[in-house]
Amino acid sequence: MDKPFLDKLRKIDPYVPGEQPKTDNIIKLNANENPYPPAPGVTEVLRTFDAAKLAIYPDANAKALKTAIAERFDLQPSQVFLGNGSDDVLALAFQSFFCSDKPILYPDITYSFYPVWCDLFRIPYENMPLDEDFCVNVRDYDKPNGGIVLPNPNAPTGRGVTLEFLEDLLQHNQDCVVIIDEAYVDFGAQSAVPLLDKYENLLIVQTTSKSRSLAGMRIGYALGSETLISTLEAVKNSYNSYTMDAIALAVGEASIRDEDYFQQTCRKVSTTRDRSAEALRALGFTVLPSLTNFLFVTHPNKKAPDIFAALREKGIFIRYFKLPRIDNYLRITVGTDEQMDKLIAALKEIL
Amino acid sequence: MDKPFLDKLRKIDPYVPGEQPKTDNIIKLNANENPYPPAPGVTEVLRTFDAAKLAIYPDANAKALKTAIAERFDLQPSQVFLGNGSDDVLALAFQSFFCSDKPILYPDITYSFYPVWCDLFRIPYENMPLDEDFCVNVRDYDKPNGGIVLPNPNAPTGRGVTLEFLEDLLQHNQDCVVIIDEAYVDFGAQSAVPLLDKYENLLIVQTTSKSRSLAGMRIGYALGSETLISTLEAVKNSYNSYTMDAIALAVGEASIRDEDYFQQTCRKVSTTRDRSAEALRALGFTVLPSLTNFLFVTHPNKKAPDIFAALREKGIFIRYFKLPRIDNYLRITVGTDEQMDKLIAALKEIL
Repeated sequence: MDKPFLDKLRKIDPYVPGEQPKTDNIIKLNANENPYPPAPGVTEVLRTFDAAKLAIYPDANAKALKTAIAERFDLQPSQVFLGNGSDDVLALAFQSFFCSDKPILYPDITYSFYPVWCDLFRIPYENMPLDEDFCVNVRDYDKPNGGIVLPNPNAPTGRGVTLEFLEDLLQHNQDCVVIIDEAYVDFGAQSAVPLLDKYENLLIVQTTSKSRSLAGMRIGYALGSETLISTLEAVKNSYNSYTMDAIALAVGEASIRDEDYFQQTCRKVSTTRDRSAEALRALGFTVLPSLTNFLFVTHPNKKAPDIFAALREKGIFIRYFKLPRIDNYLRITVGTDEQMDKLIAALKEIL
Repeated sequence: MDKPFLDKLRKIDPYVPGEQPKTDNIIKLNANENPYPPAPGVTEVLRTFDAAKLAIYPDANAKALKTAIAERFDLQPSQVFLGNGSDDVLALAFQSFFCSDKPILYPDITYSFYPVWCDLFRIPYENMPLDEDFCVNVRDYDKPNGGIVLPNPNAPTGRGVTLEFLEDLLQHNQDCVVIIDEAYVDFGAQSAVPLLDKYENLLIVQTTSKSRSLAGMRIGYALGSETLISTLEAVKNSYNSYTMDAIALAVGEASIRDEDYFQQTCRKVSTTRDRSAEALRALGFTVLPSLTNFLFVTHPNKKAPDIFAALREKGIFIRYFKLPRIDNYLRITVGTDEQMDKLIAALKEIL
């Protein structure tokens, strides 16, 4: 090799982002996006924002947005951390809190980014298998560990755990940081927020990408004790002081402040989800109980990759994971009623 | 200690972002922001952007903006990497390219984030002292190293090096990645872009924060060989696939595509800079030759921190660094002609 500079590059298996179909005439149920627009105040922000203000650096402490989030959860602004989507928040949290030689623990079937961050930051980890019904066994997490990360509800299964489960988990794990990834919590699951008062080692991560229709805006946040949040701030400020741009800060605030629109949108998605689950069961699908904006399904007579491909032919994009234990399952994002009717009609033809 | 989870947290000295004065009635010459608004197309983007599209994830590959940047520099889109401001790009570049046991090299007086990233990512480093006139000696960089990072022009000195200097540096350093940080290049310095064809180990980092008046929008980019850019993409995609939000992508494109406005704004700032340098010299200041949008000055009769404090009293904010070798210097961002006239008038009173 005559290019010695190559030896100094970071060796990494490239993580390839999921497919984003380019054509317009499709039904996109593959990325757990919200089929409804963000709160009306978001449009108002874009229409009235003074572009001249973009010449100035944004507020590195993001006081206005942190205050809006803190007020919504009855917390202090110093208990709120912001990032470019919850992926950014989680990546910083992994770097900040999982500095032990002991492995961190998380389910074997879960968000696919966890092992990627562990590899990137050289964090040892151990997977705890879900049971046959894809449920988490809380006793699996009673062993010595360097930290825990648990999505509630879990993805791509859609299954949630109760507040009692979460408190049990925390009671048995006070020597490490426990991250509850609540990306999908707003569609019917129980948030761990009421436990923040009691557990200084609890970090909750949420996002505006799903329930607030702001996937395109990259706004995620963490809620936790001042101890955890100030550690996150220190690491983040050593990385990049100004991660949140001025428009994201204003858009995020407009969204968080509109509780009515938020509740109404989440209700619409949950109603369509439950109605779609019934329709899928009527077609013979096994549908896991979902507390999210997606359904995780399998059919006894037709292989998941075949259904996936057949739907794709018809311009309907859903998600298939070629992974152990779930390679005969499909993840279907909940769209509008109209989109789901078209999906059901297409599935009827395919089956 | 009865909180063992604290042992697992990352220990880090918090980096505190610079002061952002809150009052409106001030002259802000402390953050190297551009006094002019961004290109008119930016306002147009904000006024016409369909908020409903924010429900969808942004293009992770940012094809449109990468293409605009590539076209401007006569490169391929695969030679362009995007990040949330050049700090994000530089932080990822440090992680991606400085993986050697040998120290990376950079000047003793330079951008204050370099040692912060070295500490965060545990990269060994060695500082090469600038000469008495704050110039870089290229022969200092002929020693074995794990990489080089050099801002051109340098900050906070404002001094630039020539293309010949850069080629000399690259010719003697082909076994490591050489990063040229061109945050301030557009105000009159020579860019290393013409060297990209010849040096596969060269990475150039630029930003829209200064010359394009988009500090509030967080858009930085790197230009380099496909080898370096694909490594950056792999690390970035393992961290967070969607760092650039949909509005930043559209705003960035509008700015990059308006070459006339860009040239005109840079010329205005440079003209005011040269005029202000003369006025400061007339007041007895020593003013370093600047190829940036700021001036680095010292006065023989009055201490820098005293001038800094006196200006602050008058509502004029500039920057003072209490650091070895430069603790009697002041960094003054170039504002509008009117702002600089007020600065000069205030300095006359103070001296």
